[in-house]
Amino acid sequence: MAILVVGSVAYDSVRTSLGGPHVSLGGAATYFSIAASYFAPVSMVAVVGDDFRLEDQRLLEDHQVETGGLTRVKGSTFRWIAEYGDDLSEAHTLDTHLNVFADFQPRLSPTEKNLPYLFLANIDPDLQHQVVQQMEKRPKLVAGDTMNFWIEGKPEALAKVINSMDALLINESEVRQLAGESNLIRAARHILRQGPSIVIVKRGEYGAIGFTNTDIFAAPAYPLESVVDPTGAGDTFAGGFMGYLAASGDLTMEGLRRAMVVGSVMASFTVESFGLDRLSALAAGDIRSRYREIWKLTYFGGPDDPELPMRNLDAVETSKRSNH
Amino acid sequence: MAILVVGSVAYDSVRTSLGGPHVSLGGAATYFSIAASYFAPVSMVAVVGDDFRLEDQRLLEDHQVETGGLTRVKGSTFRWIAEYGDDLSEAHTLDTHLNVFADFQPRLSPTEKNLPYLFLANIDPDLQHQVVQQMEKRPKLVAGDTMNFWIEGKPEALAKVINSMDALLINESEVRQLAGESNLIRAARHILRQGPSIVIVKRGEYGAIGFTNTDIFAAPAYPLESVVDPTGAGDTFAGGFMGYLAASGDLTMEGLRRAMVVGSVMASFTVESFGLDRLSALAAGDIRSRYREIWKLTYFGGPDDPELPMRNLDAVETSKRSNH
Repeated sequence: MAILVVGSVAYDSVRTSLGGPHVSLGGAATYFSIAASYFAPVSMVAVVGDDFRLEDQRLLEDHQVETGGLTRVKGSTFRWIAEYGDDLSEAHTLDTHLNVFADFQPRLSPTEKNLPYLFLANIDPDLQHQVVQQMEKRPKLVAGDTMNFWIEGKPEALAKVINSMDALLINESEVRQLAGESNLIRAARHILRQGPSIVIVKRGEYGAIGFTNTDIFAAPAYPLESVVDPTGAGDTFAGGFMGYLAASGDLTMEGLRRAMVVGSVMASFTVESFGLDRLSALAAGDIRSRYREIWKLTYFGGPDDPELPMRNLDAVETSKRSNH
Repeated sequence: MAILVVGSVAYDSVRTSLGGPHVSLGGAATYFSIAASYFAPVSMVAVVGDDFRLEDQRLLEDHQVETGGLTRVKGSTFRWIAEYGDDLSEAHTLDTHLNVFADFQPRLSPTEKNLPYLFLANIDPDLQHQVVQQMEKRPKLVAGDTMNFWIEGKPEALAKVINSMDALLINESEVRQLAGESNLIRAARHILRQGPSIVIVKRGEYGAIGFTNTDIFAAPAYPLESVVDPTGAGDTFAGGFMGYLAASGDLTMEGLRRAMVVGSVMASFTVESFGLDRLSALAAGDIRSRYREIWKLTYFGGPDDPELPMRNLDAVETSKRSNH
């Protein structure tokens, strides 16, 4: 089944300790779409300027991303200029030029309004809400992301759109900020009372942890010897997650767990290169093989196999009691 | 089979946002011993002052910890005064009084010299090395810990004792510092070339990740709604890890993986209270049940079950090639 994603398409300029500035196609909707495209058809609603390159259009088409909703207007595409220090977990934004993205008003086509999976990438929560309202049929799953800028600047609009989401995918520091609660479980439970039935916390090199009202699942990140550029990892995670759900149609607890592992698998490819170089050039075998490697990374036998070899300290318990 | 641990016994004074200062029995050897005692007999070599309380001696005896090597000398027991801010991952040491610990010279009894499992808790690497040299029979497993203070202050002595270890258990920031390498896999591989065949990196609320030359395993931390005091979590992890290995005798990859999960289980109890209150009062069922919960936390089916539902993008590949 197909996925609709609404979000940003950008040209990123990124410098890390390994080099740069490296200019490449980016934006949340882009990373999401390419990642999800390996599993399910994706329709993208976004805006670009008249500087949008033919080769970037082709990259999306090569992944069978439906770009009928990718509006091209006069002006420059959104630009994000950033650098990473030795700590690759945090990008330092040097400059942001919204350009044509400043006037982005998502308008869905009749087909888009009936797609069964919807992902609201990190944009103005008022726009996210307008997208939800345009849907003709309630999707099987509405998921979304947000960031500190909206948590601080538009808390009411954000609360409204979060209330309409089934799943919120969000960074660790931002879930704490949004919930006003430093303990992660309590923060997630707080969000679970605000509308979503699924909260997935993205933890960078520590993987992701997912919460529902009855379940907690921890998906590790795939450990890499060389992390080149973490840009887009979170959006890639979301793309793998939604792609798996849309392809399998499995919204059970086990399906959600596997979708998170797929998200983790896809994100691990994104960080191995600047931009989309690695993510956009995957074979099915690359993805299957890394999924198995994450399985191996976490396997430790059955829950009671073998039974834990414990000492009998009961005699001690008795003596303790007699001392009282 | 029995374990020998050499390290500190202390009185800790800890303040967190939940209260305190709370004074309690602490020290690496103490947390280690109580945790390991649920699985295997433990002999402790350490030093305390004449202020060491009878109830603390009894706590160790209740857990059948062999305290023949716990020397009592004139003076005060080691004291550590610290506080935690909202970020519970980092303790701020306010004061350290080494007291009788300043002159600690571990001397092993004939029995202790022949114990099959040895844990060198975080003390001066020269003392750690003296302990290794006193062993009459090479233990089945020598494991140890260290900290930034020794990495900076005694790098050569530290390198020597690490060379004699089978397993190094170390914090994430410290493995990076020790290896002079910010990437975790490369840092672990660096240590694996210095002697140990096992490197286990402790990551606090993110769990632990273990490396051998052929294996990587990620054990999550058990997510807790209430973390009261993280003091001793790392030493507790080591105690659970060694306790499981000594009790099962299983030094295979799977045994090491399960030992790490047991370490994670035990550490989760320690952080639920100040001091040893929770860790020292466990029933076998508490431990078994949390082990199963960590299993559930990470379970997502088999590596190929079900097979990933992937799209066939081969047609695309062909069209890409023809475009070149």
